[in-house]
Amino acid sequence: MSKVNVAIIGATGAVGTKILEKLLERKFPLNSIKLLASKRSAGKEIEISGQKFTIEEANPEAFEGIDIAFFSAGGNISEMLAEEAVKRGAVVIDNTSAFRMVEDIPLVVPEVNLDALRQHKGIIANPNCSTIQMVAALEPIREKFGLKRIVVSTYQAVSGAGVEAIDELESQSDQLQSRAEIEAQILPSAAGKKHYPIAFNVIPQIDAFDESGYTLEELKMMNETKKIFGMPNLQVSATCVRLPVVTGHSESLYLEVEDENVTVEDIHEVLRGAESIVLQDDIQTQTYPMPLFAEGKDEIFVGRVRKDPDHANGFHLWIVADNLLKGAALNSVQIAERLVEIETSID
Amino acid sequence: MSKVNVAIIGATGAVGTKILEKLLERKFPLNSIKLLASKRSAGKEIEISGQKFTIEEANPEAFEGIDIAFFSAGGNISEMLAEEAVKRGAVVIDNTSAFRMVEDIPLVVPEVNLDALRQHKGIIANPNCSTIQMVAALEPIREKFGLKRIVVSTYQAVSGAGVEAIDELESQSDQLQSRAEIEAQILPSAAGKKHYPIAFNVIPQIDAFDESGYTLEELKMMNETKKIFGMPNLQVSATCVRLPVVTGHSESLYLEVEDENVTVEDIHEVLRGAESIVLQDDIQTQTYPMPLFAEGKDEIFVGRVRKDPDHANGFHLWIVADNLLKGAALNSVQIAERLVEIETSID
Repeated sequence: MSKVNVAIIGATGAVGTKILEKLLERKFPLNSIKLLASKRSAGKEIEISGQKFTIEEANPEAFEGIDIAFFSAGGNISEMLAEEAVKRGAVVIDNTSAFRMVEDIPLVVPEVNLDALRQHKGIIANPNCSTIQMVAALEPIREKFGLKRIVVSTYQAVSGAGVEAIDELESQSDQLQSRAEIEAQILPSAAGKKHYPIAFNVIPQIDAFDESGYTLEELKMMNETKKIFGMPNLQVSATCVRLPVVTGHSESLYLEVEDENVTVEDIHEVLRGAESIVLQDDIQTQTYPMPLFAEGKDEIFVGRVRKDPDHANGFHLWIVADNLLKGAALNSVQIAERLVEIETSID
Repeated sequence: MSKVNVAIIGATGAVGTKILEKLLERKFPLNSIKLLASKRSAGKEIEISGQKFTIEEANPEAFEGIDIAFFSAGGNISEMLAEEAVKRGAVVIDNTSAFRMVEDIPLVVPEVNLDALRQHKGIIANPNCSTIQMVAALEPIREKFGLKRIVVSTYQAVSGAGVEAIDELESQSDQLQSRAEIEAQILPSAAGKKHYPIAFNVIPQIDAFDESGYTLEELKMMNETKKIFGMPNLQVSATCVRLPVVTGHSESLYLEVEDENVTVEDIHEVLRGAESIVLQDDIQTQTYPMPLFAEGKDEIFVGRVRKDPDHANGFHLWIVADNLLKGAALNSVQIAERLVEIETSID
């Protein structure tokens, strides 16, 4: 697999276009690239990084000769076509929630559980955006000091809900004075019955509700984190919230480590040396992560590290990353890069 | 004190105008009303609820004959003039942080610690906006099931930082496409050295930093909550975050009650019967509190009540209130109303 034939399914979406951009920008060893989307988009031309591409229809035959297929067109499409791609010899990197919790399908954040990648049987799942940035930021802490518990509240951008959600935020954003009359069609969930304004508002619902009272987004964070860390008994609870931010998810985390003698400086030290992490934590200069400044960046930004006043092993911190990049497209491309390395080293 | 001579200091500010509106709307037994502000604003006319008022200069002599003085012009002004008002016979209801943590000055949320009001020696402190809505929502739960611990992450509106912060959000909000170039002058803190855009952004700093790494806003929530509940050993930690929302603070809370057998339905039940609380919690109809819909409302809205998956006495919930009303002006006016009742019953 030295030169790779790639397909991107959902190539016209918010994440699909970023996957293509990242493949080109990072000089992924491409032999050919095929952009697939619904019949409706087939024949359409798109321009990414100065190159023109024609969209083809996503169907089983389209995967003939493909080595790696990135899926980012919704869970239904993945369920319909991923096995078809695998049957034809492709490795699928799936960015939907379709296979994430299937037991023998690896759920991979390369900085955290690269080993899981070696176990794949054709499909590799890319975790939820909010999960990726959280586990990648926690991994160096977990590795050194142990991890017992996470309580997370998220501050999520609209781009996680797709291009239409960005358009919706833009169309509402000039209505500050008439904000009480803003009408909504998309958020919190296009498939849901009710829609609420996102401009000048905060919506404590991402994805549909589970009967437990948690949303599917919250359950994803809770369950995927346990799977990626291989810690079924880790205590994790999440509250997921959508904000009028275009791109960049933020997370307010409370965590408990095993070790009771850890200091803020100890946490700083492991984060400073960690892969993909940028420590932004200096109260003297008002330095802390913010989504507007994380947009377009590959790294995960961590700051506001504080010791809990009542729990010797408790810490609070603030994590920000571009949800379309490390939260989705970049992580998928990094999985593909590692896959090529592994397969090449086997050859 | 059946008909009251009232003064409002900081009458032209975001909270000051709301105090006046609430006094008029709630038919507070006014004998006279005097609006005080800086020398710069003196002579200016403002119109509130169809009535015209002339601003006078705030100085010690202005408090002659005043029964109740509402202070909302910043901590410095309160420190300079509150004692002068008390000396002249007024009771001060102070909306700044100047006296909140002074030991013998009551810090009052009428639904929670009305008794403290009876102990006042001239000054009564109105708590921080984020504290008020949290303790009022927690009080019915605490009273029935006990309270051991709070971990809160806030989602705070710009109006908490004053009229200029609202203007700043408005002026930035049409720059979605050019959001990377937005310039900022006010937030996170006008007195701070650095300013960051608030439109399409999230700023994890409210007020200045303490050397502990917590911000003053976070310490206010932590310390004021203990004082209002009279629970110096209550475990409370806070992360306070500013969002592109005009008005309405939201809070994601994790709490632990004493009782290990409490259910979500039990929490619902005590909230349903509680003073000033509106329960909005129905996943079938996507019903939960949101700041855009809490704006202009007097109540505190609570929803998203869930049991923690790992802790029998742990719950998560979501609290929203209008930070200018229950979070500030309304609570101050409610303190004044109770004060009049108490003094009248003594007469």
